[in-house]
This record gives sequence, C-alpha cells and structure tokens, in this order.
Amino acid sequence: MQIIQARTSTEAIYPIYLGTELLHDNNISEIFGNARLIIVTEDSVAKLHSSKLKQAFFQYDISEIVLPTGEQHKNWQAIEHILIALDQGKHDRYSCIVSLGGGVIGDLTGFVASIYMRGMKWINIPTTLLAQVDAAVGGKTGCNFLDKKNLIGSFYQPQAIIADTSFLHTLPEREFNSGLVEIIKYGMACDANFFVWLEQNINLLLARDESVLIEAIKQSINIKLKYVQADTQDHGLRRALNFGHTFGHAIEAITEYRTFLHGEAVAIGMLLATQLAVKLCCIDADLLWRLHKLLSHLTLPLKMQLTDEKLCALYDFIKSDKKKHADNLRFILPCSLGAVKVVDGVKFEYIEEIIENYASIFDHC
Amino acid sequence: MQIIQARTSTEAIYPIYLGTELLHDNNISEIFGNARLIIVTEDSVAKLHSSKLKQAFFQYDISEIVLPTGEQHKNWQAIEHILIALDQGKHDRYSCIVSLGGGVIGDLTGFVASIYMRGMKWINIPTTLLAQVDAAVGGKTGCNFLDKKNLIGSFYQPQAIIADTSFLHTLPEREFNSGLVEIIKYGMACDANFFVWLEQNINLLLARDESVLIEAIKQSINIKLKYVQADTQDHGLRRALNFGHTFGHAIEAITEYRTFLHGEAVAIGMLLATQLAVKLCCIDADLLWRLHKLLSHLTLPLKMQLTDEKLCALYDFIKSDKKKHADNLRFILPCSLGAVKVVDGVKFEYIEEIIENYASIFDHC
Repeated sequence: MQIIQARTSTEAIYPIYLGTELLHDNNISEIFGNARLIIVTEDSVAKLHSSKLKQAFFQYDISEIVLPTGEQHKNWQAIEHILIALDQGKHDRYSCIVSLGGGVIGDLTGFVASIYMRGMKWINIPTTLLAQVDAAVGGKTGCNFLDKKNLIGSFYQPQAIIADTSFLHTLPEREFNSGLVEIIKYGMACDANFFVWLEQNINLLLARDESVLIEAIKQSINIKLKYVQADTQDHGLRRALNFGHTFGHAIEAITEYRTFLHGEAVAIGMLLATQLAVKLCCIDADLLWRLHKLLSHLTLPLKMQLTDEKLCALYDFIKSDKKKHADNLRFILPCSLGAVKVVDGVKFEYIEEIIENYASIFDHC
Repeated sequence: MQIIQARTSTEAIYPIYLGTELLHDNNISEIFGNARLIIVTEDSVAKLHSSKLKQAFFQYDISEIVLPTGEQHKNWQAIEHILIALDQGKHDRYSCIVSLGGGVIGDLTGFVASIYMRGMKWINIPTTLLAQVDAAVGGKTGCNFLDKKNLIGSFYQPQAIIADTSFLHTLPEREFNSGLVEIIKYGMACDANFFVWLEQNINLLLARDESVLIEAIKQSINIKLKYVQADTQDHGLRRALNFGHTFGHAIEAITEYRTFLHGEAVAIGMLLATQLAVKLCCIDADLLWRLHKLLSHLTLPLKMQLTDEKLCALYDFIKSDKKKHADNLRFILPCSLGAVKVVDGVKFEYIEEIIENYASIFDHC
C-alpha cells in the first residue's frame, strides 16, 4: 500500500467595516468591483432600508429577493427560492449576493453563497445588534431542516461585513437589548476590562450613543474574531463563546422560540451557569450579583417562571442535548471575571437544584 | 469608519491510500477511530462490493444507503434522502459518511458531508478508474439542480481517500477506458515524461496489470494534487486540467449525457483542442498524431458523426457556455508535449472549421 499525503489550504482575509452611515461612503460603494448584485433581505428590513441600499449602489446591476421575516421561514424553501432566482438571473460565482437583515437572513444567504456553483461572492450587511456582534462574525451559515435548527449549513466567509450602526436606530428595544446581552457575554466570558467598561457605560449604550455603541461592537467583534481565528471550524476553543448558551438554547427550545428572544434566553442562561459555578465553588457569589446587576439595567424578562410541565421539558432537553453531543453534562462556567472554563461531569441534581431555585434567588435584588 | 481585518484559515491534510485489496489492511480498518459509519453507495456497486466492505468493517456501528445508479439520480432528492437517514440515525458531525462508488456517489456524498451540521467526517472510496484519478481528488462536490449540472456543491476535503485497484477488475471496458482518457490527459497537458511512459505501457494498462495500473493512478493523483494545492478553490491555475473539457462538455451536453461517457467525450475534446492548436500554429501536427495514436489503443468512439441539427446545438452550447463564463472563447491548448496554455479570443470560424473537418481528418490513420 502506498500513502500519498494530500494537502489543501483555504485562507480568507476580509474587512469588517464599522461605523455609521457607511452606505454612502465611497470606499463602501466601490467594494463590489464590477460584480452584479443580488440583495437578499426580509419584509421588515426591506420596508425600512432597502431603498436606501439600492440608492447607494445605483451604479450596479442590482436585483432584490425579499423573504418573509422570522425564524419559521429559515428553511429549505427559502434556500430554493434564492437558488431559483440566481439561476433565472443567469448569475455565476462572480456575481455578489448581499445579505441585508438579521441573523436569519445572514445565515440563509451565506449558506446559498457557499453552495451556489460551489461558492459565490457574498457581502453581509447585518442590521441588528445581535447579528453585528455575533451571527455575522465567524463564518457559520445555516438553515433549519427536518424541523432541526441549523441541521444543514457550512463554514463560509464573506468578502466583507458592513456593520453600520445607523441601522440600529430603528431596532425595537427588545431586539436591541438581546444584542446587548451577547456583548455582556463577551465581557463576562472573555475580557474583564471590557466587562468593567460595560458597567461604566451601560447607560450610554442603552441610549444608543453612537461612539459608545461603536466601541462596544468593535470590542465584541475583536473578541469573537480571536476565537474564530484560533478555531475556524469550531472544534474546541470556540466553546468559551457558548457561555450561557446550554441553558439558553434549552429555554428557547422548550418555549418553541416564541417566548424569548435569543439574547433574553442567553441572559437567563448566563445567570444559571454562574449560579452553577457558585454552587460548584468555582467562583465567589459576588460575580453572580455583579452580572445580575449589569443585566438588570436592560429591560429583560429575567424572572423565568416555568410550569412543572415546562420544567420537565427543560430537564429532558438538557439531558438529550448533552447525550447527543456525547459530552456528558459539560458546561462552560465562569472561573473569574472575564474567564470561563470547561467543567465536565456535572451532577444532574445540581442542575435541577439551580433551576428550581432560580426564580427565588434574585428576589432580594 | 473603522476597518477590522478578519482572517480565517482552514487547512486539510489527508492521506490517499493506494493499492490492491486495501479493505482488509489493518491500517485501513482502523482509520475510522470510534466513529459510527454510514455507507452511501449505488445499486450496481452495492451488488458487487458492499458486503465486502461491511465484512471488512464489521467492528463498527454501520448502516447503508443505496441510491439508484446514474447521472439522472444526481439530484436534490438524493441529497434529501441521505440527510433524512442521517437525522433518523441520530448522527452528529463525528459520525463518518463513507462513499463507495463512482464520481456521482462521491460528489453527492461529499456534498452532504459538507453541509450536514456544517460538515461531518467523510471517507471516499472511489470504485471507478475515473473517480480514482479525477473526481475523488480535489475536493469538488456537487449536485445537479434545476436541470443544471453541479449547480450546487462545495469545496470540501475528505478525511481520507481509499483508491483500491481491486474494484477496477469488475469495471466494464468502456468505463475503464473512460478513466484511461483522463490519465492520458494528465500526461498530455501536464507531464511529458508521463505521456512517454503511457505510450510505452499502454498495453499493460489495458490488460489492467496491477503494478502498472497503480503507477498510472499514482502519477495522475500527484499531478492533480499539484494543481489542487496551488489553487484549492479553482480560481485559475487548475484550468490546465480542463484540457479537452470545453469541447468534451459540449459533446456530452448536446447528446444529453447518453451517447458518450465522460472520458469518451474528453478524448474527442482533446483531439479537437489539439487540432485547434495546430491550426493556430501553437504546435506541430506530430503531437496531434501522437495523441491520436495513443488514444487509438483504447476502444473509443473517436469518430464522432454529427447531424446538422446536433452540429448547430454544439456551436450554440460552446457560444453560450463561453458567454456565461465571460471568458470570450478561451481555450486550453497544448503548446508542447506535457504543457498547455490559455488562449483567449479564438475566432469562432476556426472552431467551426475544426469541428466540421474533424470526422475526416483521421481517416488516413
């Protein structure tokens, strides 16, 4: 037997443009070269912003696909709709698909970009705070399939990301706060100085102060990029960014993604994980109160009340999720401000205790 | 405006095992670690080889998906069928999907591997000569969609390729010869010494002599890998490997992929491209006769006879294909033995002249 070693390498370097009113910046309007553009956006965003985009890029051959807004439309039908439009428009892989919207639109469009003719140009313009600091960065694309979240998807990098804060002024408060939760997660899990800065600037952030907002987004993107660069295909190091997400995903799932926005569920998830860390003596309780205090500035439904039925569903989800990933009740827990560690083999009775006491623990706050 | 530079890098290094009766080699049977296996194969191959494979890997948790054989089944329904089986079997991205078959099975399975949970393990066991020397190497996966060949697909590398020549003994003569054509292409387009070696060993190759066959496959894979490593995502350098394929694809397309096997069409395509090179004074006519002589050892339908209607269809296909790719009648033409060059802006009347005289030019051979 002979063994031939095959080696391939794909490197992507792309700019993330960050600022306000970027669409009319000359540097931006020229990034497409002579490509034909296809904008993929969603109902709610199209009404507010798509004419602005088409105006800014008037010199291009431009077409638009408007999808219905919402996670329930993140499915193969949407992918097929875009593929048919690309084919009918005789687009090849040198055309540029432009996603304009939240995480769902970015995930779907990026997935299409990765599979149409084995990969076409893609520029991502996230219009929500959550997408700007999280979904857009890291190259994860995805589509729900067979009723499973992101059962199909790919790792695929855009040609550029345009993170324009002017889109954020029209964002509803709940959605804005949902994005802030992920920003707080970056501080809590990865960067103590950033957490302290957030404590000091939370009121300006909530007032959507332009320069403070840009600084928070910049710090968040840089933290995420550090992990993505070290672990492009999510084989281990990126796990730190999942702080709060085991509980968060479970809460979203058992409420069928209707009751909580992603960030709202992650906020509760972070509090649960931090309580668990206190319980396991990883950290001092002060850190829990500090996280709770920062999150309390946001208008968030932090006081989750679950019926017995939902409680059972929550336990089942965590057990099956953990079993599926063969990682035996592994949690990402804080070990000090701005740092987390992986804790394996957590006893399930501890999880139950934390969840059952959750509703009451912050009563005195 | 601030610009953050994002950088990601994905490197794949994987072994290609080449030899005979490899499935019972201890090194092979252990490459899956403790992964669960899902074999994807096709009717015709399953009958001949799948029990052998299951026997060799008896120690694994193993399941099998058998697809109907043929290009007409390379479609989204096949992809969906595999995705449903993966989901129902509760597979995660650490399960290993194993393709056992020709290029169609490899392309479909590789595509599923690249999108299921954003990428799962994949081991490719090509069972045809063409797939061993061409389709399996290079990471191109694909699926026909909206009646377009490989309209969707991805660049995705397997964990390993097992090129086992024992599968080739049951291969029908036409299919074997179709693979030999691609081997001859590597010599003609990329390596003069290899071409000379092929001239010397063609009779042993046709007799499927084990050691000569392995040497030919090894040389071919190494040539292809050289180009793939330099141009993983097919942005230019790989073009040399398309020698004979512009005409070849056109001939396949206008005969609806029914009259000619891929290699048979490429053989005619290489002869047409080489005639064009003689016409444009790129090379001496001797090279054309030498290529024709080598190909004539194989039982190939080299004397393509086209009706006027098919001739028009051929011209239209070449024109529209070239227009679509915005490359203005660009051809890969030989410039000496073992070397090709890109020639742009070829006059269409030359193409017509070459095709119209094609049937008669080799009459005296």
